[in-house]
Amino acid sequence: MHATTVDELEATGISARGAARELAALSTETKDRALWNIAGALRSNVGEVLEANEVDRAAAARNGEGAATIGRLLLTPERLDSMAEDVLSVASLPDPVGQVLDSRTMDNGLRVERRSVPLGVIAVIYESRPNVTIDISSLCLKSGNAVILRGGREALHTNRALVDLARRAISDAGAPEQAVQFIESADRTLVGRMLRMKETIDLIIPRGGAELVRRVAEEAAMPAITGGVGVCHVYVDRDADLEMSLEVAHNAKTQNPWVCNAMDTLIVHSAAAPAFLPRIAARWAEAGVEMRADRRAMSIVGPVEGLRLVPVEESDWSTEHLALTAGVRVVDSYDEALDHVAAYGSGHTEAIITEDRDAADRFLDMVDASVVMVNASTRFNDGGQLGLGAEVAISTNKMHARGPMGLRELTSYKWTVTGEGQVRS
Amino acid sequence: MHATTVDELEATGISARGAARELAALSTETKDRALWNIAGALRSNVGEVLEANEVDRAAAARNGEGAATIGRLLLTPERLDSMAEDVLSVASLPDPVGQVLDSRTMDNGLRVERRSVPLGVIAVIYESRPNVTIDISSLCLKSGNAVILRGGREALHTNRALVDLARRAISDAGAPEQAVQFIESADRTLVGRMLRMKETIDLIIPRGGAELVRRVAEEAAMPAITGGVGVCHVYVDRDADLEMSLEVAHNAKTQNPWVCNAMDTLIVHSAAAPAFLPRIAARWAEAGVEMRADRRAMSIVGPVEGLRLVPVEESDWSTEHLALTAGVRVVDSYDEALDHVAAYGSGHTEAIITEDRDAADRFLDMVDASVVMVNASTRFNDGGQLGLGAEVAISTNKMHARGPMGLRELTSYKWTVTGEGQVRS
Repeated sequence: MHATTVDELEATGISARGAARELAALSTETKDRALWNIAGALRSNVGEVLEANEVDRAAAARNGEGAATIGRLLLTPERLDSMAEDVLSVASLPDPVGQVLDSRTMDNGLRVERRSVPLGVIAVIYESRPNVTIDISSLCLKSGNAVILRGGREALHTNRALVDLARRAISDAGAPEQAVQFIESADRTLVGRMLRMKETIDLIIPRGGAELVRRVAEEAAMPAITGGVGVCHVYVDRDADLEMSLEVAHNAKTQNPWVCNAMDTLIVHSAAAPAFLPRIAARWAEAGVEMRADRRAMSIVGPVEGLRLVPVEESDWSTEHLALTAGVRVVDSYDEALDHVAAYGSGHTEAIITEDRDAADRFLDMVDASVVMVNASTRFNDGGQLGLGAEVAISTNKMHARGPMGLRELTSYKWTVTGEGQVRS
Repeated sequence: MHATTVDELEATGISARGAARELAALSTETKDRALWNIAGALRSNVGEVLEANEVDRAAAARNGEGAATIGRLLLTPERLDSMAEDVLSVASLPDPVGQVLDSRTMDNGLRVERRSVPLGVIAVIYESRPNVTIDISSLCLKSGNAVILRGGREALHTNRALVDLARRAISDAGAPEQAVQFIESADRTLVGRMLRMKETIDLIIPRGGAELVRRVAEEAAMPAITGGVGVCHVYVDRDADLEMSLEVAHNAKTQNPWVCNAMDTLIVHSAAAPAFLPRIAARWAEAGVEMRADRRAMSIVGPVEGLRLVPVEESDWSTEHLALTAGVRVVDSYDEALDHVAAYGSGHTEAIITEDRDAADRFLDMVDASVVMVNASTRFNDGGQLGLGAEVAISTNKMHARGPMGLRELTSYKWTVTGEGQVRS
């Protein structure tokens, strides 16, 4: 049963709460068996999932969606296989629950420990590729949390097929299939109701556009982890390696411009600009990147065959472009670059390219963002790339979790105290 | 300057935000020097503080406050000395900022670390003893956070004297005195404004009654850590040691009944009740504890000279008594006790008294609370008692921090990634 009405939504919450209690006590073996079953089911139910996917893609085409959107929706046997691999890699990670985080014995003999426990019920609202449905389900399962999924309307049939398959696989492993709940309705009023279900939802995570994130941050009655909106910078310092700067800035902008960790603004030290800017401009002319340049960058770049070069506007500096567009600014000092990042960055991902060790260290110390980088592409802010196995979201909050959220970030802890009758005096 | 108007309140936020940036970069030495200075000032400005305290106590007496409230307000040279000791003990703790929490090198050579960083600006609304003003200031200072304090009206002069002294001490150490901000006005509309200052306050912590906690949880635009409301149980199991049960239950109820970690409800297994209940009743008759007993407990206790014994009402089970009052229930099984705790507990502190190792382990596993205890008084749920040095509050949230919040719970982290030009393919 997938919720399509408000009453069903509330029932979904209660059912998830019940499953969460069972999940908290499940053995690692049972949870891993459920994950193996999901991986197996993704490989043995290819026809069923692709058929549902075909329905979604046909509907998207009828609604006049572009090739990019339909491409993001597309599942193939290869993509299903790669989703199965991801599930197996979550299964192979250590169980994040029941770990002793600290342990000490006090002078009075009390033994004090902190143990990791699941958060409970996690709700995720997302507008993403269908693989996210399985990614989130497997991370929540492994961390002993029940999950309520609310995916995008355009992937409804695909997501439903994936959830059905996952629930059967979980049940076959002897775990509660209510661990994964699915909100089927595209009705937006349901989201409003969901945001008030603080008795049954412990944490809500919006994964989607800025409007969704803002709505959840403002309306949610339960804790929310927001993020995913990245105004990200690459700063090419005066002592930067020229070739490295070209590779990293190009990769940060073009490797996948539609995601939150893509570079939005390129900041270049005036000492590096004359050698660097014309060359990146040439590459971007070829790749179709529009440069929104400040006056100095405009004059240094000069005319480049095929380059889309337009004067930057103030609003560009605080825009997450999600497109082949980059703001470009020339600064006269390191501090000017840091000030720009502090003023316009969204605390997501910030990178410096430099050969100066002190400049690098100071950047890592001073810049306040979920991930700060030296000599690497901003595109590495990703749970998989940073060794978490996978991620539920990238948090730009400072509370609880910051940056990519993997298994550990889906847990809380409790203190245990064991004595022999100690009392307080 | 202490804020007394809305405009001053906003200025306080901006000033705290500026101080937070400086604090994040301060050396451990400077922070510790500031703490030593505060401890010194508490010992060398006794007259000034006691004079202010006298003003508050006289006002409280004029307002008809009882001896208990005035006693809580009272500062003495000894209490100031003990506050100074507490500050020195915070200074002696390791710096929670700048610690490398994780570190790994990925296959592509990227070096990935997580480093602890301050949260930023923390606001605390409290209605407590004046020592809390210094406790919170010193914990925030050591963890590199700026703090905005809003204490109770009844301690206004005392708190102002303590904050003035702390700010001078901080400034003398070469740290920004704006690190500690004080809201002077008793105007309640200021609190409403404060709860919306999400641009300048990163975390708000209410320490006070249930009404304040509820208001903050509902209205705060920034993350809030709530807690401090404890409906706490002691369960005397069938295999409990009789003398230990008496000592622990008595201590949990009477050692300080006015605080959140005092026991509210005593649950007794029917096999232990006939030997235990009459004896605890006799002690409570002497100590003036009112027993609100269920029918079976009533009949087992029988008439005890001087005992206030009344039938329990359903609402008692979910009441934090904050008084010499205890609900008493007899159960026929361990599971009945666990069900009662799950139904009525507030997730604060829960204890079992038992000699049965399996029963103890199951209690620690199954009970969902910030601190779960075996054979120890609930009164040990306290930052100092559990080895944190001191505490800002006791969280009953699961996000970010649970249980007593010490220095580590006042930090966030950032990821740092260092490469040699790696790009994503």
